[in-house]
Amino acid sequence: MKAPVKRLAVLGSTGSIGRQTLDVVRALPEHFRIVGLAAGKNLGLLARQVEEFRPDFVSYESSGRVELPGGGELVTLEELACLSAADTVVIATSGMAGLAALLAAVKAGKNIALANKESLVSAGEIIMAAADKSGARLLPVDSEHSAIWQCLNGEKPPPQRLVLTASGGPFRDYSRERMTGITVAQALEHPSWRMGKKVTIDSATLMNKGLEVIEARWLFGVPIESISVLVHPRSIVHSMVEFVDGSVKAQLGCPDMRLPIQYALSYPERLSNPSLPRIDWANFTGLAFEPPDTDRFPCLRLAIEAGRKGGTFPAVLCAADEAAVEFFLSGRIGFNDIPRLVEKALAGHRVVASPDLPAIVEAGRGARESVMAFAGGGS
Amino acid sequence: MKAPVKRLAVLGSTGSIGRQTLDVVRALPEHFRIVGLAAGKNLGLLARQVEEFRPDFVSYESSGRVELPGGGELVTLEELACLSAADTVVIATSGMAGLAALLAAVKAGKNIALANKESLVSAGEIIMAAADKSGARLLPVDSEHSAIWQCLNGEKPPPQRLVLTASGGPFRDYSRERMTGITVAQALEHPSWRMGKKVTIDSATLMNKGLEVIEARWLFGVPIESISVLVHPRSIVHSMVEFVDGSVKAQLGCPDMRLPIQYALSYPERLSNPSLPRIDWANFTGLAFEPPDTDRFPCLRLAIEAGRKGGTFPAVLCAADEAAVEFFLSGRIGFNDIPRLVEKALAGHRVVASPDLPAIVEAGRGARESVMAFAGGGS
Repeated sequence: MKAPVKRLAVLGSTGSIGRQTLDVVRALPEHFRIVGLAAGKNLGLLARQVEEFRPDFVSYESSGRVELPGGGELVTLEELACLSAADTVVIATSGMAGLAALLAAVKAGKNIALANKESLVSAGEIIMAAADKSGARLLPVDSEHSAIWQCLNGEKPPPQRLVLTASGGPFRDYSRERMTGITVAQALEHPSWRMGKKVTIDSATLMNKGLEVIEARWLFGVPIESISVLVHPRSIVHSMVEFVDGSVKAQLGCPDMRLPIQYALSYPERLSNPSLPRIDWANFTGLAFEPPDTDRFPCLRLAIEAGRKGGTFPAVLCAADEAAVEFFLSGRIGFNDIPRLVEKALAGHRVVASPDLPAIVEAGRGARESVMAFAGGGS
Repeated sequence: MKAPVKRLAVLGSTGSIGRQTLDVVRALPEHFRIVGLAAGKNLGLLARQVEEFRPDFVSYESSGRVELPGGGELVTLEELACLSAADTVVIATSGMAGLAALLAAVKAGKNIALANKESLVSAGEIIMAAADKSGARLLPVDSEHSAIWQCLNGEKPPPQRLVLTASGGPFRDYSRERMTGITVAQALEHPSWRMGKKVTIDSATLMNKGLEVIEARWLFGVPIESISVLVHPRSIVHSMVEFVDGSVKAQLGCPDMRLPIQYALSYPERLSNPSLPRIDWANFTGLAFEPPDTDRFPCLRLAIEAGRKGGTFPAVLCAADEAAVEFFLSGRIGFNDIPRLVEKALAGHRVVASPDLPAIVEAGRGARESVMAFAGGGS
């Protein structure tokens, strides 16, 4: 009764989620095989991954189209996303490149382990409609959405309320004034999670939680009003679901992204993996929670408002935040400028209701321009 | 798509669980109908329940076999437990009377909402074997087992570990010396749960948690070694399940027995019930946990040992505890005498491995005699 080996295509294999996905595959070679790898610019790491995992297909951005040593057939990112040889496609490509690949995989009816946040936030309505039509399955990789998904196992939807937990990031106790002086290095020091740079900054501003609220709305078909956020610094409770009878389920675990990644890959099975950390019950003491402070962390409020208004607002939110975080990381704006610039981009946007893909792309482009203009010109 | 009305027989309708079961039925008359009621001695309350719910069948202990006003056909407890007119039988009769009724219901292949603790602790092997054979379904009513059951929803067994939470009772912080002076009134003041007297005292000694460990072993097919206990004073997290991949699920809710009772009745559905309390997310702050102290609360250790050794030991544990708690409630022994007498009964017992029902009954009788002898004679 051994489960067959699952064949995986990993888009974004050199990023944080991609590398941790390969860690899981490395730990469980009898369960998973890599049939496709795709990366953006880190060709050195991709070459080593190709050498180790010997995929049948690879995809990478290269002007010269240099063949990787031992690499498989070169295909486009969209082709890799639809690979018939893959049982599950992991979409960990960040930004809008991820969206195009995701849409291709959704239309091809694939099982999709989804780690790209921007796509569902910007184009949730389009993606979910396409998935409904094709039968594609979205398997969340984010720890919060994985938690909710696990809690919904065996339950009849819809739940009454989703409660997303947030670590609160490294500046949970900072006053708004103190935040002015936050350095890039400080913002990249996340207290509980090991993640990519963009997500780490988004965690520090709580924008990440706002984006997750919008994602949860699409993944689980729950209105934004029925999604709450609770700050939980130790990141042990990954999220909770309240049911119609008042019963609540929570999913807990050590804060290690390999756990939700593995669950998305192994679903509906669970696999024993000795390299994953476990909760130490002998030292399990307190779990603290507190309401989020949207005065000090306005990104959360901005995201929830954008999600509630819908249309192209979430795409603007997403693109403006991406641009603002880039500016912050390159030292050109301060920490408190991130919400300020996002708010300006949203305020200046003329919304399109039920947008098509070009309208979404255009809204994002406009938002980035807005951020650039305000970041350059000040105030 | 309205679910059909579920017909219920409630055995032990005048006890704490029985009354709260009727509260649930009262709140959801479109979902449940009472077809049978049984009680022991509180005929006054039974008469009022019969008048309100108009069951087709009743069962009660009465020398004169007086008919209740408006009461249905008089049947035996075992007959009521097997009622073909009932979709689910609630077994909330305490003590060994509950065991006989439970076995009858199990053999008849019923859906059984089980609140009688003693039966599964004393005769778990017999009951589970009979249930396997008949296809009877045991639906746990205890909040801890309901929590585990809810967490296992949609998951493939067996889990890696069960973590039962315990309120710790009113004497959680007492030294062993201070416990000597505990009065009956103090012991009946449970900090979080409204329950019957016997269970309330068992909660205060942690014997209740030990009995639940043994029950969990049978209900979920998990070895005693894979069941942990954590003290959690606020009784919000009702229990947790750790899976093979290290993921953990917890079930949470306000400490109100009507919630797990309703779930056992409505399963696999969940029903909205405005009369049940809900977690207040705006004021959801801390959840504290600590390991149990089996030096101060030896009953927990005694129960786990008895469960591990098996055979007739759990029956001795159960009966000795029942007798000791009676003695405590009537003021004849002190609080610390409860574990002392239970330990003596266990120490003096000659175990029977894989006992049949008469051996279990005999072991219980011997245990009660042991407690009476030691309680009377001191030392």
